[in-house]
Amino acid sequence: MSRDLSALFDPASIAIVGASVDPAKWGNAVAVQALRGAERHRLQLVNRRGGEILGWPTVRSVDDLDGPVDLAVIAVPEAGFEEAVHGVLAKGARAIVAITAGLGEAGAEGRAREDALIARIREAEAVLVGPNCLGLADNTTATYLSSNQFAPGSVAVLSQSGNLAIELDRLLSARGLGISRFVSLGNQADVSLVELIEACAADPATAAIAVYVEDFRDGRGFVEAAAAAVAAGTPVVLLAAGASAAAARGAQSHTGSLTSDAVVIAAACAVAGAIQVRTPRELADVLLALKARPTPGGRRVAVLTDGGGHGVIACDVAEAAGLDVPALSVATQARLRDALWSQSRVANPVDLAGAGEMDPDSYARAFAVLQACDEVDAILMTGYFGGYSSGEDGLTGLGPAECAAAKQIAADAAGDKLTCKPTAVQSIFPDAPACRILADGGVPVFAAIEDAAAALAAVAVPARTATMRLLPAAAEPVAASDYTAARNAFAGAGIHFVAAREVHSAEELAVAADQLRPPYVLKALGLLHKSDSGGVVVGIDSGDLLSDAHARLVSKLDPPSFSVEEMADLRGGVELIVGARWDPRFGPTVLVGMGGTATEVLRDVQVALAPVDEDEAARMLGRLRTAPLLGEHRGRPAVDVAAAARAVARLSEYAAAHPEIAELEVNPLLITPSGATALDARIIKHR
Amino acid sequence: MSRDLSALFDPASIAIVGASVDPAKWGNAVAVQALRGAERHRLQLVNRRGGEILGWPTVRSVDDLDGPVDLAVIAVPEAGFEEAVHGVLAKGARAIVAITAGLGEAGAEGRAREDALIARIREAEAVLVGPNCLGLADNTTATYLSSNQFAPGSVAVLSQSGNLAIELDRLLSARGLGISRFVSLGNQADVSLVELIEACAADPATAAIAVYVEDFRDGRGFVEAAAAAVAAGTPVVLLAAGASAAAARGAQSHTGSLTSDAVVIAAACAVAGAIQVRTPRELADVLLALKARPTPGGRRVAVLTDGGGHGVIACDVAEAAGLDVPALSVATQARLRDALWSQSRVANPVDLAGAGEMDPDSYARAFAVLQACDEVDAILMTGYFGGYSSGEDGLTGLGPAECAAAKQIAADAAGDKLTCKPTAVQSIFPDAPACRILADGGVPVFAAIEDAAAALAAVAVPARTATMRLLPAAAEPVAASDYTAARNAFAGAGIHFVAAREVHSAEELAVAADQLRPPYVLKALGLLHKSDSGGVVVGIDSGDLLSDAHARLVSKLDPPSFSVEEMADLRGGVELIVGARWDPRFGPTVLVGMGGTATEVLRDVQVALAPVDEDEAARMLGRLRTAPLLGEHRGRPAVDVAAAARAVARLSEYAAAHPEIAELEVNPLLITPSGATALDARIIKHR
Repeated sequence: MSRDLSALFDPASIAIVGASVDPAKWGNAVAVQALRGAERHRLQLVNRRGGEILGWPTVRSVDDLDGPVDLAVIAVPEAGFEEAVHGVLAKGARAIVAITAGLGEAGAEGRAREDALIARIREAEAVLVGPNCLGLADNTTATYLSSNQFAPGSVAVLSQSGNLAIELDRLLSARGLGISRFVSLGNQADVSLVELIEACAADPATAAIAVYVEDFRDGRGFVEAAAAAVAAGTPVVLLAAGASAAAARGAQSHTGSLTSDAVVIAAACAVAGAIQVRTPRELADVLLALKARPTPGGRRVAVLTDGGGHGVIACDVAEAAGLDVPALSVATQARLRDALWSQSRVANPVDLAGAGEMDPDSYARAFAVLQACDEVDAILMTGYFGGYSSGEDGLTGLGPAECAAAKQIAADAAGDKLTCKPTAVQSIFPDAPACRILADGGVPVFAAIEDAAAALAAVAVPARTATMRLLPAAAEPVAASDYTAARNAFAGAGIHFVAAREVHSAEELAVAADQLRPPYVLKALGLLHKSDSGGVVVGIDSGDLLSDAHARLVSKLDPPSFSVEEMADLRGGVELIVGARWDPRFGPTVLVGMGGTATEVLRDVQVALAPVDEDEAARMLGRLRTAPLLGEHRGRPAVDVAAAARAVARLSEYAAAHPEIAELEVNPLLITPSGATALDARIIKHR
Repeated sequence: MSRDLSALFDPASIAIVGASVDPAKWGNAVAVQALRGAERHRLQLVNRRGGEILGWPTVRSVDDLDGPVDLAVIAVPEAGFEEAVHGVLAKGARAIVAITAGLGEAGAEGRAREDALIARIREAEAVLVGPNCLGLADNTTATYLSSNQFAPGSVAVLSQSGNLAIELDRLLSARGLGISRFVSLGNQADVSLVELIEACAADPATAAIAVYVEDFRDGRGFVEAAAAAVAAGTPVVLLAAGASAAAARGAQSHTGSLTSDAVVIAAACAVAGAIQVRTPRELADVLLALKARPTPGGRRVAVLTDGGGHGVIACDVAEAAGLDVPALSVATQARLRDALWSQSRVANPVDLAGAGEMDPDSYARAFAVLQACDEVDAILMTGYFGGYSSGEDGLTGLGPAECAAAKQIAADAAGDKLTCKPTAVQSIFPDAPACRILADGGVPVFAAIEDAAAALAAVAVPARTATMRLLPAAAEPVAASDYTAARNAFAGAGIHFVAAREVHSAEELAVAADQLRPPYVLKALGLLHKSDSGGVVVGIDSGDLLSDAHARLVSKLDPPSFSVEEMADLRGGVELIVGARWDPRFGPTVLVGMGGTATEVLRDVQVALAPVDEDEAARMLGRLRTAPLLGEHRGRPAVDVAAAARAVARLSEYAAAHPEIAELEVNPLLITPSGATALDARIIKHR
């Protein structure tokens, strides 16, 4: 059950506690903004010195407020925070925007104070944004409770950084877009990103939700809320920092929060159907493309240009962005040839080759053919278009014809949004009249080809295919996490292992040698990295040799015990790594990668939120870059991918039922044409 | 010996043949431009209808020109081209700029006409740019012989696309940069890219050379010319299209030329020390960064910001661009802490954490510490800086302090160019007064963090370590290119192979079985892909089993012959592919990759211009993503990398001495701890 956040976004009356006369203080800036909405909301300012702020009266204390107060902004020093909260709750506040810093992000004591206050606020059935936030704004209700003014529009911005929101505001304005709501997340001590996504998805003035976040807190809640928003037609675009080692250093020191692991965030976005971007400019460009085309399409793009240089560069950039530039069919090429002149190139890239310079309508005719053909999902126009109306090519007199072509293109691009192909235009002259006509007609125009391609690629994300599965009930926690315990646990979960015996003495070793078939593998147990420390001997052909190897390892490493195992036949097999990690924000995740012990070098892994079923596990395997090595290739038979997928699914289910386990791993998992066999096992419990 | 191109760039007298009154014609546009320089150059216009053009008299025929003519622009229809060339040569022309199209790019007949004309022109010791070009311009000599006007500056632009040059002109202008010379390459029938790079490197008005090219023609000449320019202090930045399959389609249809293979171009740039970019915007941004810092530095960057969001995003983007963001030393952190306030984060990213908002000089103090420390090679400042002087933050009154900080930063960044660290600034407010101060002081300011990071990364390319080796004299061409011939040829070049016998009958097979040790490998020869077609049987343990396998392959494939080979012990070994390809533009190239037959799936290869010596081959191996698999890892001993490097070097030398060979390949080359052994061999001659 979602809580009611309406008092945040359209309060009947507002109090600003800590309003200031000092223009260097936040309590001044927010008062300035709030006054802009004073006709819609009853506004009261609290300043302990009293007097007037910008000609507006103040009261000296929260107790002097004339209740009821719907929403209170609290911007007092940290020492006075509790008193202010209790005071405004007493005045009936249903919502609090807490600017005050120095609580939860400052250490354990602050967190305890924060927790106590949140309990009190929830008891009062109020909600709190922050603390340590920079305010909020709703441009549709004249609720201006941030230090900055944001251009109105249809993008909801939920941000853990105030400066990022300021930058995004400028970038959106430059693209003719604007902001419906802005919320600074702060510590998310009460109102969370999840609730805010839900509230913005339900806001009729919001067409898309832009999120900048460093601390996801409830990662699974984010996935659910984002997926619901996307399913209901409100795209979610996420800028999540922290892919780099250095960024993780930065984030650890920012808002007191850890940055979530980038790979897990990508996996979460894939499940949620959220679009992930790397930078503020990408965020703005994607929002621009989404405005023109909110529903995702495919990856096949036609490149349309007049002049080969821009065409080939666009192809390079499009492919680098993950788009395909397929050759067009003979039939479509014939239609293009009919629409153009003999020198035009029509294979894709479609190059008017000078036709545009004689007759700008050529662009529109080629565009119409491409819009009508079913061989591409999107159109990327690039180069000189715009130049004839730019005033820099005045002598040719082609401006009016170019503007007419722009009108025709915009009309063709703006048909039924479910069937029309998303279009992006890159122009040398993005501000030219013809480009303005395109932009005003809903065709996004970019100055740089890489921005245009990135925007098309982002809105061409395939609709999400997987759904997040519910977490199973927690199973009985594992008692031990040593090697043999891990083997037994995974075997119990349905993973097939080579036959093995744990032995503690030469006598037990001899018994094990009789029970197992050579060649043997001998592993020293109780060491962190068995193979790195020389604690593993493979290919031992007899019991005598096994005894020798045992004696050597005893004298070298003196481990508490050994595992004697039958050696698997590696020929015709492929080694995988299968692991799971309990992410502090997103819960259990599962990883599968190529290369067994060489995985870190190959860097070919797929990660998903756990648990996954066998179908999803098979799709993960299929997405590996080196997936062709699993199939029949160069005379080698295919390995048993179904068995591999089964093992991935079972381990993911096991991990999801064991929240006490931080990491588990089978590495290598040997996949042969006849099945999957685990050759090692590892469990690491949470410290 | 370089030819004298001075008549191209500063002719005493100019004739424009094909000048036109029609503003839609190129012959009009170029006349308009040329007239701007008529005070410096004696200008004559030829129009077969006579009359005046823009108030300037014309003559009806080349014969009517008042000689001598230094430079002639020829823009007549293709049928009249020869007559015009002969005419201007008769008038003493030492340089011709040929706009006329429809010659070499139009087919064999046109190429023959072009060749004949070039011979005539060279006989006359004249030079020709084009044909099928869009003219040239030299802003330092008022030589305006293109349809467009370019803002003056210090970048020479050599471009195979006119529209690209127009776009670059605008992008450079927006960055306060401009163009010294522009040359449209056209067909390069006479004057080549190579000569133009040499001429521009020698031009004192040119500080950097920007190249857009689809057809390199003389690739090795490009490498030599670019390397010489770079060595002499003139950076070369290359935008070369054609990385995508679609781009290759486009380029085949553009200026009648093939796009060179992108990997080979990257290898050539690495040797030349040229900087490669993907898009016009990158080209302009790199030129901006080069202006501030023409000599390359290292990859370690400090990120400086006020507000964690921009800091973590900058770290992500910097690492994605190939830069490192190392943690700073305790000592440097202490110096930063002294310069900042207690809440500032100093590990890198350096986050003022609000200090800038109280005291903009914090930025300058932190910047000074970072400039002085030797733990980073470059500084990337990002975020709000500029905001206080932007007029959008007017109430705080910090604008003057911010401008003072900007002056200090610019002064600190503009010290000795050999010791000062390259700096790039990304600002939310790139046009703010403080940012203008930075830009005017030589610190490049960018609106987008990815542009700033890409520019720093481009100028951080390590100085080139390899030099291009000369091609050896051609050896006696190979007589045959079948499997056994290839084995013998490579063995002769010093490559070690497993023992093998080619056999044509069951009788020969029995003899071979006696001469070789089992287990055997049997390969059917004379088929294109032996292993794909099931023509290879491995692990044959006896002569009888070999005979059986032979019989099966005879009945299945009936190949002309077989190779019987001793089977190599693959355990503990790593399989490589080593190949060479004769590139039509860059000559012999050598490739080494991980994975043997799986190379295409792993996509982990290094390519260089051949020949390479053993040191360079070892460096190529070291640059493989999976190079750690060659060293000691996880208990496995290191393989013999020196032997692998020797094999790569020898094959590269062999390839370089055999221009008749289009491709050669050893795949797999088995590298064990004790050496390198070729398990297969292939030669493909040019068709």
